[in-house]
Amino acid sequence: MAQKATFYHAGCSVCVDAETNLAKSLDPKIFDVEIVDLGANKTRVGEAEAAGVKSVPALVLAGKPYHINFGADLSALK
Amino acid sequence: MAQKATFYHAGCSVCVDAETNLAKSLDPKIFDVEIVDLGANKTRVGEAEAAGVKSVPALVLAGKPYHINFGADLSALK
Repeated sequence: MAQKATFYHAGCSVCVDAETNLAKSLDPKIFDVEIVDLGANKTRVGEAEAAGVKSVPALVLAGKPYHINFGADLSALK
Repeated sequence: MAQKATFYHAGCSVCVDAETNLAKSLDPKIFDVEIVDLGANKTRVGEAEAAGVKSVPALVLAGKPYHINFGADLSALK
């Protein structure tokens, strides 16, 4: 069964691009990816921070944060 | 047919981790990933730079660079 992965973004162009090329290209046999827009779901910023996310776009895979390029600092989304 | 993707790294721990969890989790139906160790293959640093890579680990997908966390600046590998 695929592990859960989470892609956090904020709707910025850097984020959309990373979602299209990277987050949606993960092997569904390995990761089941949930896409979370922190701009629209500010209640989930705390959960992203707890996973170690500092900026978006970021992927949390196997409990570890992977920051991809730089769209926005998490503090800008609170 | 899968598109070519390239994962550039330099053997650092941040790189190895990103390779294991991210580069090797791309859907083989979408991307055929080549893993390049720039520490061992300095002749390919120029190619990485030409693709827009500034630091490793980085994935080049569909011709665009995605920097993942931060292991080392490309200038340290020349």
